[in-house]
Amino acid sequence: MKKVIYLDNASTTPVRKEVLSAMKPFWSENFGNPSSITKMGVLARKAVEQARMTIAECLLRRPNEVTFTGGGTESNNLAILGAVGYLEKRGSKISDLHFITTKIEHSSVLECFKELERRGAQVDYLGVQENGLIDLKELRKAIKSNTVLVSIAYANNEIGTVQPIRDIAKEVRHARKEKELPYFHTDASQAGLYLDLNVNQLGVDLMTLDGQKIYGPKDVGALFVKAGVNISPITFGGGQEKGLRSGTENVPLIVGLAKAFELARKDFEKTAKKVKNVRDYFWQKLQRQIPSAVLNGDGENRLPNNLNFSIPGIDPEFTVLCLDEAGIVCSTKSACDHDADESFVVRALGKSDEIVKSALRFSLDSKVTRRDIDFAVKKLYNIIYGHGKTH
Amino acid sequence: MKKVIYLDNASTTPVRKEVLSAMKPFWSENFGNPSSITKMGVLARKAVEQARMTIAECLLRRPNEVTFTGGGTESNNLAILGAVGYLEKRGSKISDLHFITTKIEHSSVLECFKELERRGAQVDYLGVQENGLIDLKELRKAIKSNTVLVSIAYANNEIGTVQPIRDIAKEVRHARKEKELPYFHTDASQAGLYLDLNVNQLGVDLMTLDGQKIYGPKDVGALFVKAGVNISPITFGGGQEKGLRSGTENVPLIVGLAKAFELARKDFEKTAKKVKNVRDYFWQKLQRQIPSAVLNGDGENRLPNNLNFSIPGIDPEFTVLCLDEAGIVCSTKSACDHDADESFVVRALGKSDEIVKSALRFSLDSKVTRRDIDFAVKKLYNIIYGHGKTH
Repeated sequence: MKKVIYLDNASTTPVRKEVLSAMKPFWSENFGNPSSITKMGVLARKAVEQARMTIAECLLRRPNEVTFTGGGTESNNLAILGAVGYLEKRGSKISDLHFITTKIEHSSVLECFKELERRGAQVDYLGVQENGLIDLKELRKAIKSNTVLVSIAYANNEIGTVQPIRDIAKEVRHARKEKELPYFHTDASQAGLYLDLNVNQLGVDLMTLDGQKIYGPKDVGALFVKAGVNISPITFGGGQEKGLRSGTENVPLIVGLAKAFELARKDFEKTAKKVKNVRDYFWQKLQRQIPSAVLNGDGENRLPNNLNFSIPGIDPEFTVLCLDEAGIVCSTKSACDHDADESFVVRALGKSDEIVKSALRFSLDSKVTRRDIDFAVKKLYNIIYGHGKTH
Repeated sequence: MKKVIYLDNASTTPVRKEVLSAMKPFWSENFGNPSSITKMGVLARKAVEQARMTIAECLLRRPNEVTFTGGGTESNNLAILGAVGYLEKRGSKISDLHFITTKIEHSSVLECFKELERRGAQVDYLGVQENGLIDLKELRKAIKSNTVLVSIAYANNEIGTVQPIRDIAKEVRHARKEKELPYFHTDASQAGLYLDLNVNQLGVDLMTLDGQKIYGPKDVGALFVKAGVNISPITFGGGQEKGLRSGTENVPLIVGLAKAFELARKDFEKTAKKVKNVRDYFWQKLQRQIPSAVLNGDGENRLPNNLNFSIPGIDPEFTVLCLDEAGIVCSTKSACDHDADESFVVRALGKSDEIVKSALRFSLDSKVTRRDIDFAVKKLYNIIYGHGKTH
C-alpha cells in the first residue's frame, strides 16, 4: 500500500493503539450497564468514573465538573442551548437575552446561535482582525448588562488562530462583577493535543473537549462545567450524567476518550514544540518554492500543527484532490462546512477574493517528518506549476 | 473465571464478535471524516452509506429514511422534540399541541413529554390494562383534532409486553384522514432481535432503533423517518445526516450498528422461537418451584426473551444481588430508572403493593440453556427459602 502522509488532523485523527487496547475489554466482556446494581454494572460504573477522574486530573479540576457527551458538536450544543434552557426555566424571556460569539466559530457553535436568533435572542458576532484574533476592546464594548453567555473557541479549526482565552475570561469576569453572568464558554476541541488546558488559569466556565481530534474515538467528548455554573439538559431520559446527558453511558468510548486525553496531555509542550518545528519548516520551504503563498491566520498565536495558506489563482478543491492522488491528505476548510464553496473563516479575515478562494489547510501530527514535508511541497509545486523541477 | 449466566439483555447486550470485526478497520486505518473530499473521506462516506442501506433493506424501506443517532435515547428525543420543533417553526404554538403516549414508556420518551408539558403542551398518558396492553378504544377516544404525535413503544423494556402496533397505526391513520397529522412514533429499541420490523406493515411514521440492545455498540442507533414526515433537528452544527444530526458521523459505530442489525434480522423468527421455548421452560419451572410467583405482563403478547414476575414478600434488590453473587445477572427494572425504588411499569398494571414491590426482570438471549435456567431457578429458590432442596 502506498504511504499516506496525513495532514488533515484538524478534521479527524486516527485512534491510538493504546486507546483501542483500553476500550477492548468493554465491548463484549465488561459490557454491563453502569446503572445496573450487579457486579458487571459496578465494573462499568467504575470504568466511567475512573475516566472522569482522569480527565478531571488533566484539567486540574474535580470529577463532578466533567460531563461526558457524544462529541464536540454535542458539547457545544449542551453548553450553549443548555445555558439558555436553564435561564428560560428560571423565567428569562429569550428575547431579553444577549449573546456574544465570533464570526469564525465552528458550525456547531454558530448554528446554535443562529437557532437562538430564530427563537428571538440577540447575538453579536464579533469580527476578527486580519490575523484572526478578536479585538479585546471590541469584546469589552459588546458586553451588555443582559449578556448571558460569551462563546469563543480556544483555537480556530481552520486557520489555527489561538485566542487570548485568559484575557477574554478576564473581560467576562470584569463585566460580571458580583453577578453570576455572563458565562464564558470555549470550544477547546482543537486545543486538546497542543495547548494548556489548566482551566483554573484559563478562567473558563464551560469548555468543550472532543475525542476525535486527540487520537480518540469519534462521537465521544466531554463538557467541563465549572461547579456553580447552571445549565439544563437538552435531551431527556434516564438522567445519566447528573441529568445533563441521558442514555446509557458509552463505556468503551468514554474509557477511550480518557486514555486519549491522558496521552495527549503527557508532555504536550514537548510534542507541540516538535510539531511546530516541522510546521515552520513547511512554511519556510513553501515560501521559497511558491513565493505567492500567503499565510492565513497569525504567525505566532497559532496551533503548532496548523498551516493554512492561500495560493492565488489555484483551485483549492482540485489541488486537494491532486495531492490526495499523490498520497497527501489535506483539506480546503472545515469538513463540517462541506456544502460551502469557500472558507467563511478566511473570508472573515477581510482578505481579497483571490485569497479567500484559494485557501488550503494542512494540519500535521508529531509523526510527520521534514522528508514528508519535502515530498508534499514538491507535489504541491508540481500540481501548480506542472512537472518542472523544484528549486 | 466463574461462568456468568447473563439474563439482563433488556438492559444492554455484549457486542458480537462479527460486529467488532466489522468496526475494526474504521478506528485507525479508514478513519477519515466522511465529509472530506479525499479518498479516505470517500471510503468513510461509503461505509456510512452502505450501513444505511443495510438497515434500510432490513426495514424494507429506502436509505434516505434512516438517520443515524447516538442511540435509543437520542432517537426518541429526535422523534418527539424534533416533530415539535418542526411544528413550532411552521408557526404552531406549543400550548395548542396535543400528544398521546402511555404510562409505561421508557424514560427517554416519558421525560420528553414531561419537558413538553413544562413548555405548555397537552399530553395524555394512556393507562394500560392489567396485562400491560393499551386499550385501542381508549386510544381512539384520546385522539383529538389537535393531536400531533402518538408515541407508543413496540415492546416494553420491563414487562416485555408487545403492543398491537399495526392496530395503533390504523387508529392514527383513521384519525388523520386527509391531514398529515398525527404522526405515529414507536420506540422499537427492544424489538430489534425478535419482532417483525417491516415498517410498511407496521404502518409507523417514526421508529427508534438502538445498537446496545441487539449486540451492537452502545451510544449508536437510528431513527426511521418515513419520507414526507417532517421533523427538525434538536442539535445544530455541520448539518450531517440531512441536517437532522450534526457532528462527524461515528463511522465505526455506524458500521457496527448495521452489522448487528443485519445479524439480528437474519432468521429472527427462528431465534425468537428458540428463546421463547427456554423462557417458557423458565416460567413453568418457576411456577412449580415457587408457586407464589406472579407473572407481570401478558402471557402471549410478549417479547420471547422477557420474563418479569413478582414473588410477594421478597426484597427484589437484595434478590438481584444474591443472584449476582451466584453468577446470575438480572434486574429489578429498567437501569434507566436507577433512582426509583419500584417499577413504575409494574405499578401501572394496577397490581397490589406487594406485587409492585417484589418484581424481578429476566431477559434471556439465544445462548441461554435449560440447564442455565435450572441453575437460576435453584439459586432463586435457595435465596428465598434458604438452602432447602428444590423439587
